[in-house]
Amino acid sequence: MMVREDGRKNDETRKLKITKNVNMHAEGSVLIECGNTKVICTATVSEKVPSFLKNSGKGWVTAEYSMLPRATAERNAREAVRGKLSGRTMEIQRIIGRSLRAAIDPEILGERVITIDCDVIQADGGTRTTAITGGYIALALAVKKLLEDGVIEENPLIANVASVSVGILQGEQMVDLKYSEDSMADVDMNVAMNDKGEFIEIQGTGEKNTFTRREMNALLELAENAIRKIIRQQNKAIGGI
Amino acid sequence: MMVREDGRKNDETRKLKITKNVNMHAEGSVLIECGNTKVICTATVSEKVPSFLKNSGKGWVTAEYSMLPRATAERNAREAVRGKLSGRTMEIQRIIGRSLRAAIDPEILGERVITIDCDVIQADGGTRTTAITGGYIALALAVKKLLEDGVIEENPLIANVASVSVGILQGEQMVDLKYSEDSMADVDMNVAMNDKGEFIEIQGTGEKNTFTRREMNALLELAENAIRKIIRQQNKAIGGI
Amino acid sequence: MMVREDGRKNDETRKLKITKNVNMHAEGSVLIECGNTKVICTATVSEKVPSFLKNSGKGWVTAEYSMLPRATAERNAREAVRGKLSGRTMEIQRIIGRSLRAAIDPEILGERVITIDCDVIQADGGTRTTAITGGYIALALAVKKLLEDGVIEENPLIANVASVSVGILQGEQMVDLKYSEDSMADVDMNVAMNDKGEFIEIQGTGEKNTFTRREMNALLELAENAIRKIIRQQNKAIGGI
Amino acid sequence: MMVREDGRKNDETRKLKITKNVNMHAEGSVLIECGNTKVICTATVSEKVPSFLKNSGKGWVTAEYSMLPRATAERNAREAVRGKLSGRTMEIQRIIGRSLRAAIDPEILGERVITIDCDVIQADGGTRTTAITGGYIALALAVKKLLEDGVIEENPLIANVASVSVGILQGEQMVDLKYSEDSMADVDMNVAMNDKGEFIEIQGTGEKNTFTRREMNALLELAENAIRKIIRQQNKAIGGI
Amino acid sequence: MMVREDGRKNDETRKLKITKNVNMHAEGSVLIECGNTKVICTATVSEKVPSFLKNSGKGWVTAEYSMLPRATAERNAREAVRGKLSGRTMEIQRIIGRSLRAAIDPEILGERVITIDCDVIQADGGTRTTAITGGYIALALAVKKLLEDGVIEENPLIANVASVSVGILQGEQMVDLKYSEDSMADVDMNVAMNDKGEFIEIQGTGEKNTFTRREMNALLELAENAIRKIIRQQNKAIGGI
Amino acid sequence: MMVREDGRKNDETRKLKITKNVNMHAEGSVLIECGNTKVICTATVSEKVPSFLKNSGKGWVTAEYSMLPRATAERNAREAVRGKLSGRTMEIQRIIGRSLRAAIDPEILGERVITIDCDVIQADGGTRTTAITGGYIALALAVKKLLEDGVIEENPLIANVASVSVGILQGEQMVDLKYSEDSMADVDMNVAMNDKGEFIEIQGTGEKNTFTRREMNALLELAENAIRKIIRQQNKAIGGI
Repeated sequence: MMVREDGRKNDETRKLKITKNVNMHAEGSVLIECGNTKVICTATVSEKVPSFLKNSGKGWVTAEYSMLPRATAERNAREAVRGKLSGRTMEIQRIIGRSLRAAIDPEILGERVITIDCDVIQADGGTRTTAITGGYIALALAVKKLLEDGVIEENPLIANVASVSVGILQGEQMVDLKYSEDSMADVDMNVAMNDKGEFIEIQGTGEKNTFTRREMNALLELAENAIRKIIRQQNKAIGGI
Repeated sequence: MMVREDGRKNDETRKLKITKNVNMHAEGSVLIECGNTKVICTATVSEKVPSFLKNSGKGWVTAEYSMLPRATAERNAREAVRGKLSGRTMEIQRIIGRSLRAAIDPEILGERVITIDCDVIQADGGTRTTAITGGYIALALAVKKLLEDGVIEENPLIANVASVSVGILQGEQMVDLKYSEDSMADVDMNVAMNDKGEFIEIQGTGEKNTFTRREMNALLELAENAIRKIIRQQNKAIGGI
Repeated sequence: MMVREDGRKNDETRKLKITKNVNMHAEGSVLIECGNTKVICTATVSEKVPSFLKNSGKGWVTAEYSMLPRATAERNAREAVRGKLSGRTMEIQRIIGRSLRAAIDPEILGERVITIDCDVIQADGGTRTTAITGGYIALALAVKKLLEDGVIEENPLIANVASVSVGILQGEQMVDLKYSEDSMADVDMNVAMNDKGEFIEIQGTGEKNTFTRREMNALLELAENAIRKIIRQQNKAIGGI
Repeated sequence: MMVREDGRKNDETRKLKITKNVNMHAEGSVLIECGNTKVICTATVSEKVPSFLKNSGKGWVTAEYSMLPRATAERNAREAVRGKLSGRTMEIQRIIGRSLRAAIDPEILGERVITIDCDVIQADGGTRTTAITGGYIALALAVKKLLEDGVIEENPLIANVASVSVGILQGEQMVDLKYSEDSMADVDMNVAMNDKGEFIEIQGTGEKNTFTRREMNALLELAENAIRKIIRQQNKAIGGI
Repeated sequence: MMVREDGRKNDETRKLKITKNVNMHAEGSVLIECGNTKVICTATVSEKVPSFLKNSGKGWVTAEYSMLPRATAERNAREAVRGKLSGRTMEIQRIIGRSLRAAIDPEILGERVITIDCDVIQADGGTRTTAITGGYIALALAVKKLLEDGVIEENPLIANVASVSVGILQGEQMVDLKYSEDSMADVDMNVAMNDKGEFIEIQGTGEKNTFTRREMNALLELAENAIRKIIRQQNKAIGGI
Repeated sequence: MMVREDGRKNDETRKLKITKNVNMHAEGSVLIECGNTKVICTATVSEKVPSFLKNSGKGWVTAEYSMLPRATAERNAREAVRGKLSGRTMEIQRIIGRSLRAAIDPEILGERVITIDCDVIQADGGTRTTAITGGYIALALAVKKLLEDGVIEENPLIANVASVSVGILQGEQMVDLKYSEDSMADVDMNVAMNDKGEFIEIQGTGEKNTFTRREMNALLELAENAIRKIIRQQNKAIGGI
């Protein structure tokens, strides 16, 4: 049986470290560290809504994702310098946004937009799943502030949202792949779930290899157990709302 | 029990019409119609490879996706006019590319690139899955031509790749959603599989609602059965290689 | 005397095939085939006008032109990927727009915009002239629909508009050049006319060779005769309005 | 009979003023003033050729066109600020380039590129035709320098190129329209010719009205006579080569 | 002691030539020549203000800067072709704008924007300082026109603004560096001052060498004396307001 | 006498906190906190040099600057989303690059590029000066690593570089302005110096008010004293090289 580089068991996630309120300006903010992957998530509440929301009485949650140029082993040119977002960034921030929208009842939120910025300070695999998990915390903190400030009266949060990666590497199914594992994985899957054990987003790719329904089920089992634990950590960090 | 707008059963796909060789210039081409969704897929073989392939002895399959401005009920501004690809286009063409790369052994293909262009002439839901299914046909036809022309001697195709959408709408699980169904679906999932019944790409989103593992399994069952039939139609259209 | 590759006489146009209503969403649409050149033209009517038309009581006709990447022998990178329209595209779509505006009385059309999208599915010379000829059909069909739907009461069409290329190749004046002829031509001229035999747009270039007034006249004679025939085919396709 | 705003006869061009060598860096340069339209044309010779010329033994002439923001009555935003060239600029600089290439034998020029920059300092109609006329002078001066410097031994200039606008305004055919005339013209035509009285480029547009073959001939007659005079002024300015 | 290439003394500026009203459209315009550096400055008054000024009762002065492609010894690609402004252009036009805003009382100007376009026709060092000096003249002429036209009643000009470069080259402190001096200078400083001898903008860079406070003071002394003379020339050109 | 919001004396800088090696990938890295302003600086060494350095035997130091969207009180749209760098970013990163190049002997560094990325995590005034001070530390750490790894044998660092802002607010001259001070300052000056007390870059702006030579000298005195202390902190953090 293969041993993971950092000695973890196949169903063992990396240590998660959550530091709240790292930004003095944002309505909600967190530095989330999943092993060596570090992401700053901030939540910005805006009363100015895009035209498709006007007079709808509904709110919106959206996300943006970026990596600092030297978040990775090789420096990447800034997307602002290249003048456009890469396909990878586009794909990732759409997934984060869709996942986090499942945490909110848009009618209770009311006509306002919460933007979750996820900036990867250091990357070691799992940046999008860490961004979703951290993004939820920033979102929840911003909601808490809206309630405390009396901007809204009812809590629009309807569920925790958290995410983890699972994959198949050398025939082994494992959870929370770090970069060296991820880059060699045959199958790579990102799963976002809520606190009822329901799926919000599943994105699995067998680019190097295909996978069967049985393997799929085993991966989802791994993800479900990991996310349950992650949600407990989220709630401990957020405190009561 | 809900009845689908066009009278189909929940496990019934739309009629698939495949017209080969619709482009006199391309190495492989097809017009694929899935109900009212119509996509032209062309395969272009290039001996000029990007730098990451040079001296690797390996080939590459990549895909691009676009919709004509009036493919949809409302006209969309051209991405060329706006000066950039939308996030939706980026996300879709990355999925098509990943799926089709699973059809090819890159070492047998050898140092060349096959670009699959998927241009949606008319859209009625399922454009990305139709593009994958049609893209495989264009790819196979191009491979056939490379073999016939003696450019390559061994067939690099290792599996059929086809795709279909599944979803949950008003509590019903159904396959191959047309636009009016898709826009109201609670859960929307795109599945790409090979001819061994293995998964290549699964992308499921429960933006309007979440889904359970049981529902997930039922959806994959629907997809698997549909894709098995679609692959038979692919092979009939392509003929022997 | 030189014989044309496809056996046509110098004053003989290629076979024109017109298929109406190829798009279920557009107000007017046509697939026009001039030999191997194939263009889909759609007309989109919008009640939302640009600021220069507001409160003018006048309408506007505009055109956009694009080629699918593999419409040509060599694949061209998408303009959306390069992030901007090429000079060639810009020049062509301006000519199409100017030509088609001559078909309409803007005051009778009233404050609305009709956008003609001309997408070249396959190219073999004469894409811009085919786009003008097909664009007029899409425009006329859209006008017909506006009249039938009672959106407008009076017919704003004031003239048919059609176009053909003429050129000088190896000393011979000829009409409707296919790509292999066009790329070797000494003089290349695109002519748009109306059904009264009047000119709307003439664009002649002698990049490889210059031309005299006498040659100019002979070319216009060829164009005029060809366009007269093309307009008859347009009207047959459109039916009465 | 209509009288032109500035008292000119219909076949009378505006005063042309040519100031040579206005730029100390360029290989050839001229400030050309046609009435109130003022254009600086510079010729830059580069030994670095684009890939399509490499090892062809042939040279190339290309042109770029721009207007200063306040060249016109209303200030126009800079294209550099908007991040892209307008369709108008693209169309115009393609015409200038095509016209000026007719002045040169590319094999005698040899593998080098001459770029003609045409920057409109002040506009009052006819900027593109003035740019062609001035661009030829800058080109000829650069060729003269190449000959004097011994870079080339044979003169690659094969013909003068000059250009003028003609148009129909309130039923009158007239030459060299200033802006107030141009903006009201029913028919607007730009003609470039060489010193043998042959046409290089004709671009006529009847956006506001159509025109007959007879009118076309009268316009070309006007253009021909005007260009003959302009070429005499070009040659006087350039001096012998 | 080093002798300057053009024989000037270290504290001697180049000859300044000011030609007013070179543009028939602009509210104010000037061609300013500082030795071989030539800049056209135009002032455009717009009653349409950006959102940050609306209902503020205050005006704004802004500047744009550009060089014609062949203003320099080597031709530079147009920023409009590259699709974006260079960092150098951005930095320069921000400095020009900041300097010229010091000339105006925004409340007396009232809610309107004056845009100063500075287009370098020929460059030989000192383009940004020449642009500031010329920009002030264009601005003053536009203000004069606003007063004469009765658009404003009170003169919003509160001070002359002029600028010059100073630098250290081979140990010598000198004023108004031409390009051949500037490119070899150890220290390069641009100074903008008003007619009271006060500083508006100082930008000094010792990229090739550092500089002491004593050198700094000597440079500012040189700048101050030069600017005093330049302002006299400005006022002579403008005439009374 | 005015009292500063945070109780500091006019010549008192904010507390500087330097955390080394915050990035596991970069050759040098630091988190520098100046009061509430927090900047991550990373140094990336690349052996791949731009064309202007090839075969020069010389190295280069360059810098890029960016702010996270919510580094400020109001969220700013990402420059990558807007598709271009703002003028402010351009201006700032050019100043950082120029300043840091003064720290290095390019011939001793040898043909390699060190890129200093300065990413502002939280902003409260003085981001550019903090970036220069922190950028030097990241640079020095990268140089230390190059020496330890034996990539270079001689130390190319020739001087410390540090920076601070000074300004005039309500008649008081003060050092290290926080945002609330900076936004109300009449005069704002950024000064970069080396450890010999020499100036590298001075950029002073009196947009709201002008300043005299006497005030200039007082400001430089303040800056000099502050920078001397900052350099001691830099050296303590870096340790011996």
